[in-house]
Order: sequence, then C-alpha cells, then structure tokens
Amino acid sequence: MSQYRTFTAADAVEYAREFGGLADPQSLVSSQEIGDGNLNLVFKIFDCDDVSRVIIKQALPYVRCVGESWPLTLDRARIEAEVLQIHGKLCPAHTVKMLHYDPELAVMVLEDLSSHAIWRGEQIKGIPYPQAAAQLGEYLAQTLFHTSDFYQAPDKKKADVIRFTNPEMCGITEELFFNEPYEIHERNGYPRAVEPLVAQLRTDDELRHKVAALKHHFLSHAEALLHGDVHSGSIFVAENSLKVIDAEFGFYGPMGFDVGSALGNLLLNYCALPGLLAPREAADAREKRLEEVRITWQSFAEGFLSLAAEKSRDRALAYPGYAAGFLNKVWRDTLGYCGTELIRRTVGMSQVADIGTIQDEAMKVECIRQAITLGRTLILAAERVENIDALIARVRQNG
Amino acid sequence: MSQYRTFTAADAVEYAREFGGLADPQSLVSSQEIGDGNLNLVFKIFDCDDVSRVIIKQALPYVRCVGESWPLTLDRARIEAEVLQIHGKLCPAHTVKMLHYDPELAVMVLEDLSSHAIWRGEQIKGIPYPQAAAQLGEYLAQTLFHTSDFYQAPDKKKADVIRFTNPEMCGITEELFFNEPYEIHERNGYPRAVEPLVAQLRTDDELRHKVAALKHHFLSHAEALLHGDVHSGSIFVAENSLKVIDAEFGFYGPMGFDVGSALGNLLLNYCALPGLLAPREAADAREKRLEEVRITWQSFAEGFLSLAAEKSRDRALAYPGYAAGFLNKVWRDTLGYCGTELIRRTVGMSQVADIGTIQDEAMKVECIRQAITLGRTLILAAERVENIDALIARVRQNG
Repeated sequence: MSQYRTFTAADAVEYAREFGGLADPQSLVSSQEIGDGNLNLVFKIFDCDDVSRVIIKQALPYVRCVGESWPLTLDRARIEAEVLQIHGKLCPAHTVKMLHYDPELAVMVLEDLSSHAIWRGEQIKGIPYPQAAAQLGEYLAQTLFHTSDFYQAPDKKKADVIRFTNPEMCGITEELFFNEPYEIHERNGYPRAVEPLVAQLRTDDELRHKVAALKHHFLSHAEALLHGDVHSGSIFVAENSLKVIDAEFGFYGPMGFDVGSALGNLLLNYCALPGLLAPREAADAREKRLEEVRITWQSFAEGFLSLAAEKSRDRALAYPGYAAGFLNKVWRDTLGYCGTELIRRTVGMSQVADIGTIQDEAMKVECIRQAITLGRTLILAAERVENIDALIARVRQNG
Repeated sequence: MSQYRTFTAADAVEYAREFGGLADPQSLVSSQEIGDGNLNLVFKIFDCDDVSRVIIKQALPYVRCVGESWPLTLDRARIEAEVLQIHGKLCPAHTVKMLHYDPELAVMVLEDLSSHAIWRGEQIKGIPYPQAAAQLGEYLAQTLFHTSDFYQAPDKKKADVIRFTNPEMCGITEELFFNEPYEIHERNGYPRAVEPLVAQLRTDDELRHKVAALKHHFLSHAEALLHGDVHSGSIFVAENSLKVIDAEFGFYGPMGFDVGSALGNLLLNYCALPGLLAPREAADAREKRLEEVRITWQSFAEGFLSLAAEKSRDRALAYPGYAAGFLNKVWRDTLGYCGTELIRRTVGMSQVADIGTIQDEAMKVECIRQAITLGRTLILAAERVENIDALIARVRQNG
C-alpha cells in the first residue's frame, strides 16, 4: 500500500486501522473529512461508538483553496512529520503526537484531539484558557532554543538546515507576508473603505524598508527550526492543555517570526473582539487577550534565558549576558513580524475568522482599520518599543 | 586515473599534460611543490624552457601544518572548484581561472600566475599596486551582490546554500576566529609581553558579547556566497591586475565577513610597517595602506549599490533605498569582523608574515600590541564608527 493517490474516506479508515497503533483497530468504522485549511485533506476516524480515535492527514499536490493550478510539493509532509518529531521530543506536552508517517502517500497519522478545540474559535467565542499563553511561550522557548546555535553542534545544525530547506512553503510566505500586501495584487482582499490606508502602506518608504529587512531576515537568518505558521488556528487548547499542530511551513529562520506570528494572531483577535462580543464582554476579553500577549512573551523570554543559562553549548554564545542581548534582537524582530502578520491577515489573501465572522460591516471595517494601523505602528516603531509593557501601551493607544 | 592518492611531483606533471588544456602538453617536463599554506599540495608545472605554465592544487585529507592527526574533508576541493566557477563567472577579471577539476583526486588545474606576486609579500616590501584596492572592492561587490537575496531567486539560493554547506572548513573559522583568541588555548601564540592585553580580551564582557554576536552571524546569516578567506595572502597582484585564489572556505555567510577579512589584513600590514621599513618609507607605505582601506570599502560599497539599483530582482529588497540601509548593516559587520581578524592573526594560531618577518623583537611586540588594540577598538566601537572616514580616523588615533 503506497504510491501517491488521494485518499477517500474509506481509504482513511483502512489506513487508520493499519497504522493508528490502536489495540482494537477493527473498531474503526467511519471517517469524516474536516480539513478547513488551505492545503490538505484531514480525516477524523471514528469507532463504532461514533467516538473519534485518530486523525489522518494527507498533503495534496496543490494548494487546496486555489486548486490544481497551484501545484505544491508533497515533500512538505516529510518536513511536517520531521518537525513534529523534533518539536515533539523537545516539547512533548505542547506538540501534537505523530503516530506514523508515510512519505510516498504524504500521509501522517496523528493523535486525535477531539477533547480539545481550536484556540482561534474559542477566542472568537470569548472562552478563556488561562494556561494557554504560558504553555505557548514554553513551546516557543523549548523548540527555538534547542534548535538554535546556542544548543546545537554546528555540523548537526548545518545538516538540519539542509534537511529543513523548504523552498515552496517558504515561497508562499515570502509572497503572502512580505510582497503582496504592499503591492496592488489580485490575491489581496479587503473592504474598499480601507483602500486609503492600504495605499499608504505601498508608498511609505520607511515602512517598505522595514518590511524588506524583515523579508531579508526571513530569507537569510537561520536562527532556529521554526514551526513557520504558529497562529491560534494551528493551536488546540483544552483545560490546562495546549497542542501545536500543522508544521508544514517548518524551516530554519529567524526566531522572531514564530513569536511574532503567535502574538500577531492574539492581537488580531484583540482588534476583532468589539465586533464579536457585546461591549462589556468584549472589553473583558480584550484585557484577557492583552494579558495573554504579555504572558506568551514573558514565558518565552524567561524560558529561553533560563535554558540559555543552563544548557548553552557554544563556547562563545554561552558567555554570560550574551543570550539576553540576543533576545533583545529577537524582540525587535518579533514586533516587526507581528506587524506584518496583522497586515497580511487583513490586506492579503489569508484572512482570519476572527474578523471574517464579524456580522456588522461597519464594525468589520473598523476592526480591519485598527489591525492595519497597529501592524504599521509595530513595524515602524519596533526599535523604540522597548519591552512588553511598552508594546501593550502601544496597543491600547491604537484604540 | 582517479581514486584518491597524494600526488608526487611526477604525477603532477603527468596530470597537467592531460588536463592543462595546453596546445603543447608534452613540453611540460618538471614541477615544484610550492604550497606554503596550511592545507594543500600546490605544484608549479614547468616546460622545457623552465617557464611555469600551469598550477596543480591537491587537497590533502588532513591539516598540513598540523599533520594527519587533524583530518579534513576532501569535499573542500569541490567547494573551492565550484566557488571559483561561480565567482569566475561573476567577476572573471579578478578570480583565478580554473581549467579542470577532479572530485576523486581532489585536484584542480589552475592558470599559472607567475606574472603576479602575492599581495602580502609586496606589501611587506612596500611595493605599491595602485589599482589593487579598487579591483578588490569590485570583486567583493560582484560576488557578494550576485549571490545574495537581492539577485538570486529564493529557490536557487536555497539550493546553493545546501551546495556550499561547508561544516569542516567553517568549523576551523568558528574555532580560530571566534573562540580561541578569547580563551587560554594551546593553539594561541603571542609574545609574553602582550599577555596583559590578551588577558583583558578574555574578561571584557562587552567585547565577548560583540564577538559572540559576530560568531552567531557567521553561524546563521546566509547573506551571500563568501570566499570565506579573503586576505592579502590569497590575492595575487600585478601591474593593473588582481586575482583572488584559494576559495576552500567558501560558504553562505555574512557579507561583512569577507569585506572585514580583506580590510583587516590591510590594517595588519599597516600595524606591521614600522617594523618592516625605514621610518620615512614606513610612513609613506602606511598612508598608501590607509588609502587602500578607503578605496576597497568605497569601491565595494559603490559597486554594490550600483548593482542593487540596476539588477535587484527581489520585489521587496528592490524597493528604492533599502540596499543603502542594508549596506549600513554590512558596514557594522565589516568593522567587527575586521577587528576579529586583527586579533586572531596576532593572538591566535594563524599568524601573518607581515608581523612574523619583523626582525626587531621589541618592535614586533609593539606592532602586535597595536594590532590587538585596534582590533578591540573596532569590535567595541562598530556601532559608533559611522563611515570609512571615521574608521581611518580611529586607525590614526590608535598610533
């Protein structure tokens, strides 16, 4: 059973029986395709009591949301499987467990997370997960520190940079994050009412220089093995549990990209909340979201510094005090990438449900306006926003 | 004829007849091993009139100056051959011409440069080459721009980063440049009189942080396909001609490393000149050397900016004004790497003839002291030395 073919619902059940590692494989009887992402087939596999037991994820050879006209390498399934393996070893508590991987079929068998919910959906509903931010920070600290030059031997790291070279998936980010929102482009999509704001992005020299520098770092700074697409839609949460999924964008890049993407999505939700909840609930939820921004950064930063103090292996980088200085550069990058995430999710092709589900059109426009303005501010002011308190103050100033 | 074996003088002649591309191969009759480097066998091949016609360079499977106890990959010959091919296409005027390469024997056939002399030796004798600095700057601009993200397509560049992954040779630099001079290490070698100065390097927190950052950039910033070892000993000069040789340290790294190594070696000679020439000649030669430092940087910077304006392909990086901002970062890196070169060539294992040939011991110590002090100043002040004029002023202040 191999050679690539697209799975049917029945194929998925059969495959799960064989490779799901269950004690009672024959109890699996049905499946449901639940892929709501842009790139893959995802099947939930159910037993005869209609309990979902395992997930089958198959990469399609094209961008699902565009169609067969945009072909896409199946090698991304290998990269995803290997990133999940490495991140799973480094941070087992917060990485989805991969049970099996088949390179020819580009199929992974993953633990079922039906007891969890996608964090973005919960944020939209205003449901709090008080531990999630600290857990996300811990995931970022463990995965980014242990795959960096602080910890990895130089030859092993160079071999891993090769292994995780991911040109097609990085190419998507290079276009969607750093080019298209700052150009007139057919894939962009935003309300006509914010066109003046978007037009300003295209002609602001300082902004374009900063975005170019962020893209340049994305292209050339191999600091750690990134997840490459950490956002609240690729994070499952439950009471006192957080699991990161969907690592097909993994590659060696700048740490601030992962951290900034994570914070950017929390801030997108912050911007959207007044359109999603009643005024008092929205205000409460916004405060919680800001607190999550703070805790995510603090948990990452404290975790990273504590790992650096205990476990740095590179003799030069281990010199006391260096890690703190480096973390300051990661902070500047984080602010910049956070800003580009706010912009590309509102101006560019890949929009978020936080804003998409706002019913009131005028409110939606106002939320988009706020997200674009905040994104622009963070990119431009990255060098002057000294710490997490200053970031939160800027967010409040923005409205 | 293949499978690795170490060449004898006769093997080299035979090989040159077969692969030297000469119209009269049988005229080649003798050879002389001239390798004065640390890593390879180098044969000059002579014809029956005792005229040298071609060079045979063979990589040895160990570090020559240490012995078989330090094994070293033969893959460096492939990397050298492929770097010379690429740099030769980008800057044919200033890259030694490679005529043939054999991966199994780790042998290259190179054009004979007997009409040229090694620039370092000429600088030691005080012989001027008025065009050399501008030509070196041009070489740096052409090779670094065209292999950077400004010009290379992202997928092609990622493939080249893989192709030029060079862990063993980079490992040598990582140790000798960035670790050992700042540690008590058996491979270091400097006069006892400068021990207090060297001891200061080890305990200066700010310096150690800056050196760690330079090493971190060396490990992680894949900005362009570097030569990796550009110094006046790997550059041949003749009247109005300059040829760069010895590219086995090539890899994708920070541009400032190549530029800083080049400037650092000019400044090492500047520091050494009072010990090499009579006072008036030394003073004249020092002025010329400083002028070469200025011209090398200016020629590189102007060449890079002009290429960036004309030929940048990346849509974000091509935004007008970005290249100038990036060049400013390259300048900061250049100052730092220049400083580490001054220190590693005086404190560390690989010393330079500029200082080694000084006869007067007290004078030699003074020159070493000056080089270490200047190196330290440049590393510490990199963010405050605004431009090439400010660099030259700092050098003069140093003594």
